[in-house]
Amino acid sequence: MKLYDGGRAPNPRRVNVFLAEKGIEVERVPVDMGQLGHKSAEVTELNPLQRLPVLVLDDGTALSESVAICRYLEELHPEPRLMGGDAKDKAIVEMWNRRMEHHFLAAVANAFRHTHPAMKDWEVPQVAEWGEINRPKAVAFLEMMDQELANHEFIAGDRYTIADITGMIAFDFMKPARIDRPEHLTNVMRWYRAVSARPSAQA
Amino acid sequence: MKLYDGGRAPNPRRVNVFLAEKGIEVERVPVDMGQLGHKSAEVTELNPLQRLPVLVLDDGTALSESVAICRYLEELHPEPRLMGGDAKDKAIVEMWNRRMEHHFLAAVANAFRHTHPAMKDWEVPQVAEWGEINRPKAVAFLEMMDQELANHEFIAGDRYTIADITGMIAFDFMKPARIDRPEHLTNVMRWYRAVSARPSAQA
Repeated sequence: MKLYDGGRAPNPRRVNVFLAEKGIEVERVPVDMGQLGHKSAEVTELNPLQRLPVLVLDDGTALSESVAICRYLEELHPEPRLMGGDAKDKAIVEMWNRRMEHHFLAAVANAFRHTHPAMKDWEVPQVAEWGEINRPKAVAFLEMMDQELANHEFIAGDRYTIADITGMIAFDFMKPARIDRPEHLTNVMRWYRAVSARPSAQA
Repeated sequence: MKLYDGGRAPNPRRVNVFLAEKGIEVERVPVDMGQLGHKSAEVTELNPLQRLPVLVLDDGTALSESVAICRYLEELHPEPRLMGGDAKDKAIVEMWNRRMEHHFLAAVANAFRHTHPAMKDWEVPQVAEWGEINRPKAVAFLEMMDQELANHEFIAGDRYTIADITGMIAFDFMKPARIDRPEHLTNVMRWYRAVSARPSAQA
């Protein structure tokens, strides 16, 4: 299989951290998103929505959507489990991963895409007001998370999962989105330091 | 187990259609979202994000996020499969379900929440410009889907899956969001008529 990789952009990085945690090596096709490489004819053929990453299987099947790619890798290489074990555990991990996506990563991404000058040819039209109101949404979610993380070590409980990957990447993405780190949220900061110290965070 | 149910609102309905397709009966606690029942102390205790539905398991675990609830039900009651069989099939269904969520349901929901007068106490503040630009986004996605549905009967291939549930519910939600039905997209309309004719669509 072959990974069309967009590097450190949030979604490509989610899959790269997931691969690093699993210890899986894959052949990579680097795509320069700064040069709009994800809108090339080659990528469009693989994903009509022109998003990265895309994992192309040996039979030619093109998988896109980061979490769908992770699902495939988790099924093929179950250990270490990053998406839960039994029915209840899988559902809890999926719940937390989706909470991190819908209430944190999406808010940070909206702030970035709708207010950052570098995004003006990517997000057409930018709606500055929409971008601005997403900053306090992201912070409000982290305030809720701070209470949750008083009771469990990681996002979805007491072991590292895909929900921590989504959360770490959203947290790092706050910098270009110009959202201040909430240094006063001690449980969130403790969690962030722990997940960032893992070797996979370099991906 | 016990389902805190929000009725015909899009996310509660996704789980209700899923249950109907599986033929699973569950005890229901109806919550009147029109009366903001999802913001009650009882629901907030189960889901700090105050969203429905919530499935409470016999051990007291509260699962929220519609697709996480569906994941739990699929694991417990695998047949009929609505989330894929082997690794590749699961990933393809997840890819399509996420495409339907991120590029269709989200666009329709944004149009509804940010432009409909009835939503002014729900979505604070409403950003009318953001709502407006989501209408053509939803239609552009359906134009892409029309080409896809020339080649397969259902959204994720040749069998009905959770991606069809998400798509049908987003399609029905276009009416309150004031997005015209794309009658000229013959493949989309053929698909919509087929999924809507299933008994589960009454849920």
